[in-house]
Amino acid sequence: MPGEEQTPVRRVTEGDLHSFTAGVLEHLGMREDDAATTASVLVASDVRGIASHGVARLDYYVALLEAGGADPRATPTIVRESATTAVLDAQNGMGHPAGVQAMTLAIEKAAAHDLGMVTVRRSNHYGIAGYYAMMALEREMIGISLTNTHPGVAPTGGRSRVYGTNPIAIAIPAAGPTPFVLDMATSVAPYGRLEVAARRGTALAQGWALDAQGRPTTSVEEALHGMLLPLGGPAITSGYKGYGLALAIELLSAVLPGASYGPLVQPMGNVESASDLGQFFMAINVAAFDEPASFQARAGDLLQRVKASPRADEATEILIAGEKEQRASEAARRYGLEIDEAVAKNLQAMAIRYGIPSPFANT
Amino acid sequence: MPGEEQTPVRRVTEGDLHSFTAGVLEHLGMREDDAATTASVLVASDVRGIASHGVARLDYYVALLEAGGADPRATPTIVRESATTAVLDAQNGMGHPAGVQAMTLAIEKAAAHDLGMVTVRRSNHYGIAGYYAMMALEREMIGISLTNTHPGVAPTGGRSRVYGTNPIAIAIPAAGPTPFVLDMATSVAPYGRLEVAARRGTALAQGWALDAQGRPTTSVEEALHGMLLPLGGPAITSGYKGYGLALAIELLSAVLPGASYGPLVQPMGNVESASDLGQFFMAINVAAFDEPASFQARAGDLLQRVKASPRADEATEILIAGEKEQRASEAARRYGLEIDEAVAKNLQAMAIRYGIPSPFANT
Repeated sequence: MPGEEQTPVRRVTEGDLHSFTAGVLEHLGMREDDAATTASVLVASDVRGIASHGVARLDYYVALLEAGGADPRATPTIVRESATTAVLDAQNGMGHPAGVQAMTLAIEKAAAHDLGMVTVRRSNHYGIAGYYAMMALEREMIGISLTNTHPGVAPTGGRSRVYGTNPIAIAIPAAGPTPFVLDMATSVAPYGRLEVAARRGTALAQGWALDAQGRPTTSVEEALHGMLLPLGGPAITSGYKGYGLALAIELLSAVLPGASYGPLVQPMGNVESASDLGQFFMAINVAAFDEPASFQARAGDLLQRVKASPRADEATEILIAGEKEQRASEAARRYGLEIDEAVAKNLQAMAIRYGIPSPFANT
Repeated sequence: MPGEEQTPVRRVTEGDLHSFTAGVLEHLGMREDDAATTASVLVASDVRGIASHGVARLDYYVALLEAGGADPRATPTIVRESATTAVLDAQNGMGHPAGVQAMTLAIEKAAAHDLGMVTVRRSNHYGIAGYYAMMALEREMIGISLTNTHPGVAPTGGRSRVYGTNPIAIAIPAAGPTPFVLDMATSVAPYGRLEVAARRGTALAQGWALDAQGRPTTSVEEALHGMLLPLGGPAITSGYKGYGLALAIELLSAVLPGASYGPLVQPMGNVESASDLGQFFMAINVAAFDEPASFQARAGDLLQRVKASPRADEATEILIAGEKEQRASEAARRYGLEIDEAVAKNLQAMAIRYGIPSPFANT
C-alpha cells in the first residue's frame, strides 16, 4: 500500500495518551466526562492502528474549538423520539460525546424493542465510525454507524467535491478470535491516507484521486487540491456503486436528521463556523432472530471458512474485516502505541502550549 | 460499458410479458397468486432495463422447478416474530413471493413501530433486490433489501469462489422526478453482465474478474470458469472494501436467519437440490424522524445539487442511482419492452413447449 512505509515513531502507553488528550480537550473548555469520552474515541483509533483518525487529528479539533467552530460545552438534546427511534441535536458540540450518547440510546431501544435507530444533527467530525458500531458488540448486538463528512469526493461523471468520504461501519459479533468489524470510507481511499502520504512524501496509487480539473492524478499535492474518487474508481470499474453508497449514507445520516448535506457542508478547513454534520446509529438485537450463541457460532464458522480458503499466489493471508485492527490493538496494549514522529512533535508542542504533561514523559 | 452494444431485439408489452411469465410458472405448479407475484418481479426488472435479471433468467427458474430444486407450492411460514422483527422460513419456495411477503411484513411493522426488519431462510434467488426496497416508497418509507447468492466472488487475497455477488438495494423517497434507488451487486460486475457479454461475444473490462487460477482476465469464458472480483477490484484500489461489504451482507441476510452461507451454498448450476439462500428486508418510517414532505424536499434538493454539479469533460450527464432505470421504465411503458433476440427465441420455445400463447403474438 503506498504511504505505509516505515517512518520514525515514538512509543506511548494507551493510558498516557488518553490522559494527555483528555487534558487538552478539558483545557479547551470541554467538561471532564465529555473530554474523557472524546479522548477514548481518538485513542481507540490509534490503538486499532488507524493513525489517520486518532491523535493525529487532535490538531483539527484544537483548531475547531479555539476558533469557536464547535461548542465545547454543548449538551446534546433529544428533539424527537419514539420507542425505537430518536433524533438528537448535538447543539454544535464535538461529534464524539454526541455519538456515544446516540449509540447508547440506540442500544437501549434495541434491548427493549429489538431494533433501535438514532440520528444526530448539528454535529461535528466524530472520529472512527467503527467505535460506535463496536459498542453494540458488548451487548451481543449488531451495530451500524454512518456519517456524512466535509465535501471531498466527485460523483461519477463529475469534477467537483459534492459529498464526503462518508464512511460506513458494521460490527457483528462472531465466535472465534475476532468479531467482524467493517469500518470503511466509501471513497477509494480516505482523506487521512492522503495526509499520511503527504507526511511521508509518497505517491498515490492510480485510480484514487482527480486533480482540481477532474483529471486522474497520482500526485498527493494535486489530489489535496482536487478530489477523491468513489470506491470502484472510474465508471468502467463501477465507481458509480461507491458514489451510490456514499449518497445513500448522505441521505440516511445527514438529510434524515436535518443536518447540512452534500455540497452545502462547508470545507473542513473552515474552522470558524459550525459544520452541522449528521450521523446515524443503529443497533439490532441478534436475540430477536436466533439464540446469540448459535448465531455467533455460524458467523465465526463463515469467517473461518473464508479465511481458510485457497490463497492467491501473492497473498500471505486472507484477512477478515477488523482482524488487522484487532491485532494492532493487542500489540498496542502489550508494547505501547506507535505515534509518527511528526505527530509526536505536535503533541509535545501542545503539551508545552497548554502546560499539560507530555504523553511521552514516561517513555 | 463493455457488453452494451446494440443487438437485435424484439418488442413486447409489459402486460403480455407478465401474462406469459405467470403462465409458464403456473404451468410448473405455482399457485396463481405466487406465479403473478414472481412474474411481477421478473418483468419489473426488464421494465427497468435490467435485462440480466428479468425474463432472461426464466430459463433458470424453469430448470429449478422442473428439477425439483425449488418447491412451486411452498407456503412461507413465520418461525420467530416480535413487534419489530420476524424470521420467515420460505420452505424452499421461489424467492419472489417470500420476498414480497417478508417486505410487506417489514413495512407493516415499521408503520406500527417505525422500524421493521424481516429475514428469510430456505429461500431461492429472488430477482432484483431493488424491487423489494422500492415497495417501501409507496408508504413514503425507506426500504432496504439484501440477499446472499450462489458463490462466484473471490475474497481479497483469495482465488476461489467463497461468496456471491451479494447485492444491496436501498430505496429512499425524494421530491422531484426520481426517488433514490440504489440496487447494486457488491462485486465489480454482476454475473448477469458476464452472461450478457457471453451472449454478445464481447470482452470484459480490466479488473472485473479472475480466471480459475486466480489470475486477472478479460476473457468472458475464463471469467465464467473463474470468479468475479469484489467492488474496488484488487487490494491497491481497496477491493477489500467490496469484499467486506459482501461479507456483511452474507452475515445479515444468510447467517442471521439461519440460511446456508458462503462456500456452503451450492453452485447455481446445481438445480436438483435446495439452495437455502437467505434474504434481509428492512423498512424505516421516515415520519419517525421528520415530516415526510420536508424530508423528501431536502432529499430531492441534495440529488438535484449533485446532478447539477460541474461535469467531467467526457461525461454528458451526472446520474442519480435509479434515474437510468426510471427512464427505462417510462420508455418501456410508452413504447414496449425490448427483449434480446436470443432471449425472445427462448421464450417462444417455452410457449410452444408448454402450450402457452407467445408473448410476441400481438406484436
